[in-house]
Amino acid sequence: MNLENKAAALLWIAKFEDLPDPIQLSLKEKADLIEEEGYLLQFEKGKVIVTSKSDIGLLYGTFALLRKIQTREKLEELSEIENPKIQKRLLNHWDNLNRTVERGYAGFSIWNWHRLPRHIDQQYIDYARANASIGINGTSITNVNANALVLTPEYLEKAAALADAFRPYGIKVYLTARFNAPMVLDNLPTADPLDPEVQQWWKDKTREIYTYIPDFGGFLVKADSEGQPGPHNYGRTQADGANMLADAVQPFGGIVMWRAFVYNEHTPTDRIRQAYDEFKPLDGKFRENVIVQVKNGPLDFQPREPFHPLFGAMPETPLMMEFQITKEYLGQDTHWVNLASMWEEVLQSDTYAKGPGSTVSKVLDGSLHDYKLTGIAGVSNIGTDRNWTGHQTAQADWYAFGQLAWNPEQNIEKIAEDWIRMTFSNDTEVINTMKGIMLNSYEILVNYMTPLGLHHIMARSHHWGPGPWVTGGGRDDWTATYYHKANSDSIGFDRTETGSNALAQYAAEWKEIWGDAETIPLEFLLWFHRVLWNKKLSTGNTLWDELAISYQKGVEGARWMQQEWNKLEGLIDPDRFKHIASFLKIQVNEAEWWRDACLLYFGQYSKMPLPEGVEAPKHDLNYYLNFKRNFVPGI
Amino acid sequence: MNLENKAAALLWIAKFEDLPDPIQLSLKEKADLIEEEGYLLQFEKGKVIVTSKSDIGLLYGTFALLRKIQTREKLEELSEIENPKIQKRLLNHWDNLNRTVERGYAGFSIWNWHRLPRHIDQQYIDYARANASIGINGTSITNVNANALVLTPEYLEKAAALADAFRPYGIKVYLTARFNAPMVLDNLPTADPLDPEVQQWWKDKTREIYTYIPDFGGFLVKADSEGQPGPHNYGRTQADGANMLADAVQPFGGIVMWRAFVYNEHTPTDRIRQAYDEFKPLDGKFRENVIVQVKNGPLDFQPREPFHPLFGAMPETPLMMEFQITKEYLGQDTHWVNLASMWEEVLQSDTYAKGPGSTVSKVLDGSLHDYKLTGIAGVSNIGTDRNWTGHQTAQADWYAFGQLAWNPEQNIEKIAEDWIRMTFSNDTEVINTMKGIMLNSYEILVNYMTPLGLHHIMARSHHWGPGPWVTGGGRDDWTATYYHKANSDSIGFDRTETGSNALAQYAAEWKEIWGDAETIPLEFLLWFHRVLWNKKLSTGNTLWDELAISYQKGVEGARWMQQEWNKLEGLIDPDRFKHIASFLKIQVNEAEWWRDACLLYFGQYSKMPLPEGVEAPKHDLNYYLNFKRNFVPGI
Repeated sequence: MNLENKAAALLWIAKFEDLPDPIQLSLKEKADLIEEEGYLLQFEKGKVIVTSKSDIGLLYGTFALLRKIQTREKLEELSEIENPKIQKRLLNHWDNLNRTVERGYAGFSIWNWHRLPRHIDQQYIDYARANASIGINGTSITNVNANALVLTPEYLEKAAALADAFRPYGIKVYLTARFNAPMVLDNLPTADPLDPEVQQWWKDKTREIYTYIPDFGGFLVKADSEGQPGPHNYGRTQADGANMLADAVQPFGGIVMWRAFVYNEHTPTDRIRQAYDEFKPLDGKFRENVIVQVKNGPLDFQPREPFHPLFGAMPETPLMMEFQITKEYLGQDTHWVNLASMWEEVLQSDTYAKGPGSTVSKVLDGSLHDYKLTGIAGVSNIGTDRNWTGHQTAQADWYAFGQLAWNPEQNIEKIAEDWIRMTFSNDTEVINTMKGIMLNSYEILVNYMTPLGLHHIMARSHHWGPGPWVTGGGRDDWTATYYHKANSDSIGFDRTETGSNALAQYAAEWKEIWGDAETIPLEFLLWFHRVLWNKKLSTGNTLWDELAISYQKGVEGARWMQQEWNKLEGLIDPDRFKHIASFLKIQVNEAEWWRDACLLYFGQYSKMPLPEGVEAPKHDLNYYLNFKRNFVPGI
Repeated sequence: MNLENKAAALLWIAKFEDLPDPIQLSLKEKADLIEEEGYLLQFEKGKVIVTSKSDIGLLYGTFALLRKIQTREKLEELSEIENPKIQKRLLNHWDNLNRTVERGYAGFSIWNWHRLPRHIDQQYIDYARANASIGINGTSITNVNANALVLTPEYLEKAAALADAFRPYGIKVYLTARFNAPMVLDNLPTADPLDPEVQQWWKDKTREIYTYIPDFGGFLVKADSEGQPGPHNYGRTQADGANMLADAVQPFGGIVMWRAFVYNEHTPTDRIRQAYDEFKPLDGKFRENVIVQVKNGPLDFQPREPFHPLFGAMPETPLMMEFQITKEYLGQDTHWVNLASMWEEVLQSDTYAKGPGSTVSKVLDGSLHDYKLTGIAGVSNIGTDRNWTGHQTAQADWYAFGQLAWNPEQNIEKIAEDWIRMTFSNDTEVINTMKGIMLNSYEILVNYMTPLGLHHIMARSHHWGPGPWVTGGGRDDWTATYYHKANSDSIGFDRTETGSNALAQYAAEWKEIWGDAETIPLEFLLWFHRVLWNKKLSTGNTLWDELAISYQKGVEGARWMQQEWNKLEGLIDPDRFKHIASFLKIQVNEAEWWRDACLLYFGQYSKMPLPEGVEAPKHDLNYYLNFKRNFVPGI
């Protein structure tokens, strides 16, 4: 382009320093507000301008412009400065080196380790581009139940090849560190984090990693949990473990994401108390480059949990969020549920840590406690399936995660609508119908799976389908009966002062609201209270009736989703229409399965009849107890 | 279409009985030659006519017409009656129920068992359509190393859903039968094929299968081999085992494909003799609905083997061919080698069973021995990879298998050209360059892997890369040293009268040609003979020099393929150009790896220097001995 024509150009995509002087001049004030990864979109004197301070900001800005074009926004009204509110925006892949994916429901790992580093598949580039388009800037590529092999040259070379492929898209690679790697790989006699030889091992290993990946992001660690080794094995604290690794990556600018998901079956207290009990006393004891990664709720990605009590409780220790994009407990591959609805509920929960308005989202963006380091992670839902995510609509969860990671205050209705417009259609009927399904889907699923605060009542091990009868087997905290404690009088887990008192981990405001079985919102009733089957609730129904009616409502909701979807036949392409219709049929069947199995099981204890309007189960309880399937994916 | 317009139609695709009378009249004589699955393509009075006796014939004819259009044949010259020469044209999937694929190098199984029968993925339809387009009419969907679970209702329901999806494309489903299934599934005390209770079990099971799949094709069985249970466990013959199953499927029109790949480490004779020794005496002892499935060579899908001596030796027992489309021993996912070249060599081999011209292909099409049942199977090379086959060019093997299954006499150059035209381009340079690569690729690969009749010198277990040093480990017949027997004097396996005399299993003509170390074609020299390292060959080189030169030639061939391919940049789409270029780079590296590792290893014995022109190895032998990789796919 020669200079004369340059002045006439109507679209400018350039770093601020590369824009022509007159444009720079007119945008100076706005440009000052652009941060490292941010961008400015501006319509100015007939020109569309995308500008930034960095290459990656420019890429984000360009994707934002494309989104606006795809969603038919008015370009003449462009005037927007966007900076990400959270620094580290990661996917966590629970991908094993043999390409199985723990809790993966979209096929197998897209990392073809065997071909790496020899072959860089186009899919890696597509992956990076897709992530960049929604603002993801990091990826932990291996399972948190970690294999130390990934720290050997054989695999570092492969990880480095992925890092090279991702780098142009602003995505850093992180690895999971198996805590006893010094023993596994080099026969050290211990992995004690206070042992100088162990510390040196990690320093050497880290230096080696950085020779392969100069911008290596750092480690993600699951320790002392579900069989993973950790500092507890040596009588050390989680801070001791995290700090050892933090010291190793510190010279290179790396970070350590240390998971708070620490619990074990030998601790006598309520499982959901344990992370808080363990980490709260360690507040302020972590190095500056450690961030503690906390699941959204205190149990384990259940369909509905109250927010994790650590949020707001660690003013001196940066906390990051771990959401699960893959739907381990929310229907796996075949249920349509808009996870953004769940995430928004958590993000907007008020911790009251510094009075009203101290939301989880303000903990995460660092504003509440002035965190120097901020982050958010989503456990990936992608795999080798042709459509990446198994369910077409699970792409929306990947997208929404990226949007909320960039700005946790974003409106989820807008997120859903943008996704529909970009993915399916700008037709009003398609948008409204799909948005209706999406925004209602979460309550529907909770109703047919775990209404009224029920939790952890899924099948053992693979977690597919209902399993309220799961009991025994060596670990109480992995059974359903540990959590619902149904007997002939009542059901529910007393977590008030008269019970495990897990409620004490929350602010006084919540103790008041949740502590009273009369006033607690019904969605958390059985999470915090034991309730008599025949207790009359605020709805006027007995607990039993309310439970049955909720399950029935869930089933009817699933059927409604199906009917709504069927209205779109002909308005979207037949392939995707059929695919989603096929999965919705499964969803309705499985909603009925959950309702029937759970009501039959709990009905043994309540001994009360199903209220009017609740359909009779299709089979007897034995059918559901004996329903077994082999090779359910994800384990 | 009203009747007036109908007469004017220029394209007719209709069963013969549905064609208008005048067309029927003019094509009567030709139509009489169309068989059940056949079709007629005819240009007649300005009309293109595709006709057949059956729906499936019409589908095959339509695909043939599309092929002619894609390859730019002149439609005005259409006049062709095509009937398949082989009845049962199957893919064999070695797919496990957990979706791993034994010897699969294109990702994982495309059968999503967990979602079946609830969801029929579009990929199943695409699979069936692709197979129908090349004439495949059956598929055995589970691994020959079989899991009895596939015979339970849980899986029969899933298999039936696949059968329903495949049926419109003329593809029947077959299952692999684990021989001890009566014990595994129903606790029978024995699986003895002569036990009436066992026989009844299989009859009942078969009847049950047909309630799920009314047109179930039958069983494929691997017995008494590599740990699989079989009739030997009860002192029975392979015929006893096959006949029991044959009796069970007979009332429903099913068949049994009984694999001849039977051998074990306790039989003292040369492993490659064992199938012949076992099956030859059973000729004529099998039921009419049994067909014995024989691998192309007597060992195990090595890069080059002489044809299997059972071909021509079983006039009273139908034999079918088992080719391996997946490249277990031919470079797995990343080498480009045109398997049709290897297959043609086998198909055109003369068994001399009824004098000259008694080719393997005439055994297979039934003409040599008047077989009532004919068949051919290819072990599938497809998986979840985006391009189905891992290597783009491995699609050509799938295609060529279908073409040769339809007619084993087909010209492989034409097959290659058609594939190139349909898949890449009708541009002359693209066609000639790709065809050149393809038609030379097989000799090139044999040279860099197993020249001069070497065999079974690959790495242990995963079979990826060279392993001439593999020895010990409990099963001699799974080592390399068992086969090459290199020592300081000589190398090779004496299979003449002075050795294992496996040569005796061939016709006199072959004994003469192959029995003499002076006259045997060099490609089978070390397969049949032990030869001194310093023996002068017909080429004027010593054996050692010839070996080294062959390896070098292989490497240079791989480099030549790479150079040829690079000429096509810009002539085909960049994605596929890059993908294949990336794999060719790996192929060149691995060709060098094979050459260097094998020459270093054998050089220890020959103690002779590398002849001029053979490049020095890049590393020392220890490097290759210690080269280990984890999680190599396919096992």
